[in-house]
Amino acid sequence: MDKKVSIAVIKRLPRYYRFLGDLLDDGITRISSKELSEKMNVTASQIRQDLNNFGCFGQQGYGYNVELLFEEIKEILGLNKTYNLVILGAGNIGQALLNYVKFEKRGFKFIGIFDINPNVVGTKIRDLEVKHIKELESFTKENNVDIAVLAVPVANANELYKNVVSYGIKGVWNFSNTELEKENGVIVENVHLTDSLMTLAYKFNSNNYLDN
Amino acid sequence: MDKKVSIAVIKRLPRYYRFLGDLLDDGITRISSKELSEKMNVTASQIRQDLNNFGCFGQQGYGYNVELLFEEIKEILGLNKTYNLVILGAGNIGQALLNYVKFEKRGFKFIGIFDINPNVVGTKIRDLEVKHIKELESFTKENNVDIAVLAVPVANANELYKNVVSYGIKGVWNFSNTELEKENGVIVENVHLTDSLMTLAYKFNSNNYLDN
Repeated sequence: MDKKVSIAVIKRLPRYYRFLGDLLDDGITRISSKELSEKMNVTASQIRQDLNNFGCFGQQGYGYNVELLFEEIKEILGLNKTYNLVILGAGNIGQALLNYVKFEKRGFKFIGIFDINPNVVGTKIRDLEVKHIKELESFTKENNVDIAVLAVPVANANELYKNVVSYGIKGVWNFSNTELEKENGVIVENVHLTDSLMTLAYKFNSNNYLDN
Repeated sequence: MDKKVSIAVIKRLPRYYRFLGDLLDDGITRISSKELSEKMNVTASQIRQDLNNFGCFGQQGYGYNVELLFEEIKEILGLNKTYNLVILGAGNIGQALLNYVKFEKRGFKFIGIFDINPNVVGTKIRDLEVKHIKELESFTKENNVDIAVLAVPVANANELYKNVVSYGIKGVWNFSNTELEKENGVIVENVHLTDSLMTLAYKFNSNNYLDN
């Protein structure tokens, strides 16, 4: 495709994927963009525009084939592969992520968890023994690590990130609530929980927004 | 204001707020939209457009007064008030949120945490004793609860949400990885961690997106 797709569209795809998965579970095989739009509370024209970006066109009068569309979005999102993840930081967030089985169902497999705290290193969390962070480099050499989950405090985040990049890991899922410097060829996805809470505060105080 | 602001703009405000806070910490009092744009890796025209929505205009040739803009965005986001939060579910996510001190600095105060697990109810997490969820109704009557944090498994989420709404709580921060039904006058902000991971997978596999 020549035309670049805006990240706002990309960020809506997982939601389509979830809804289509639910429809499949309910045995629904076809859906019009109008019906889908009512279910998802977005406009039918937005759905059509979003999906057209990837060459997913519904048939006039027939709507979308749910299973085909589900499989197409799965492929677009890269969910037809599996990914190996390591968690850096075995605190509450790190443990919560490791215990979250839904990720594995989507192809995201946790193969290691690392920390520096001597009280935590050596303990087991869900079949994985917590390793010391200094073992990360050799672990990365011996295993195919796709994504590092940064679940460490702000103070440690940037240094650790630089190490992760130097070990050749190409994906970073960042929970450390700081912005990381751009590095060529490295994908960073930030989860800023404070931002989400601030957005909630805004909506709490103002009805001056369009919710879509 | 007559014109509704798109939620995409609202969701960018916390990031402006964070960056402006960092600038203030660094003693920077003025910044042009061009400089801010380079720091934040968004276009200068987007910054101008976003801020114009709220009547925040930079001065031609002078740029923005950092402190004024910071204070304005703070007010727009509703961060000049404090909010009382209760956490429903004292698992890993609930505990991680409770231990996250940055929220309190922004005015979000955790005043209660609830669970159903008898092994957890009665224990203390960071000065708060975990209460049984059946006490939530009376707790809500006795305290001014603004926001309920839903940190329970999918299976319990919708029923608990209905209770929360019936107790008169007007804000819900939803970590349960399910979509909640719209209720009049109730603000729901969803944190879908799986969606974030899927977005990372997409970027991992394709460079066909505009990152802004």
